Amino acid sequence: MSEFTNVAVTKKANCYFDGLVTSRTLTFPDGRIKTLGIMQPGEFEFGTQARELMEIMSGELEVLLPDEEHWRQIQGGESFEVPANAKFRVRVRSLTDYCCSFLP
Amino acid sequence: MSEFTNVAVTKKANCYFDGLVTSRTLTFPDGRIKTLGIMQPGEFEFGTQARELMEIMSGELEVLLPDEEHWRQIQGGESFEVPANAKFRVRVRSLTDYCCSFLP
Repeated sequence: MSEFTNVAVTKKANCYFDGLVTSRTLTFPDGRIKTLGIMQPGEFEFGTQARELMEIMSGELEVLLPDEEHWRQIQGGESFEVPANAKFRVRVRSLTDYCCSFLP
Repeated sequence: MSEFTNVAVTKKANCYFDGLVTSRTLTFPDGRIKTLGIMQPGEFEFGTQARELMEIMSGELEVLLPDEEHWRQIQGGESFEVPANAKFRVRVRSLTDYCCSFLP
């Protein structure tokens, strides 16, 4: 789907790592939340609360998922899931446009 | 208002200047369009088609509006308008979170 309809969008951005990672929060009618974000090149560690589905619309990165030993190569059109209450690391190689869905 | 409700959000980001400026497009039920964007520090020139209202939620920048000789200092909480079919320049001093409304 190329757009999300009937959503509420928080006006202010979420900013992390001095703005190298920013996102916008979308709230759906059923209360589900997604963020649409941009990562500039760099290496970042994130922590999850809920389980997350990360869809990469464009860009190139490597991700080190919890309990994995090897970095996975990820590019536009691919996605990965992260468990709840976990940490994961990314190495962003080129500007990355992503959609993060918080899963139940 | 802290959020926009009942909008459609385009999934893919708009990217300009190698991603130093990115934005998300929101379409309202009456067809009006706004973009929510992030500008990294740098100097950029933009061209308008429609008249634009630029609201700066946070950040610091200078703007040179068409037919003006002096750069205006703008910071979070301030806004400026740009006429249609015009060019304007910005010097972004710190990460800037903005909302651009395309005016009729």
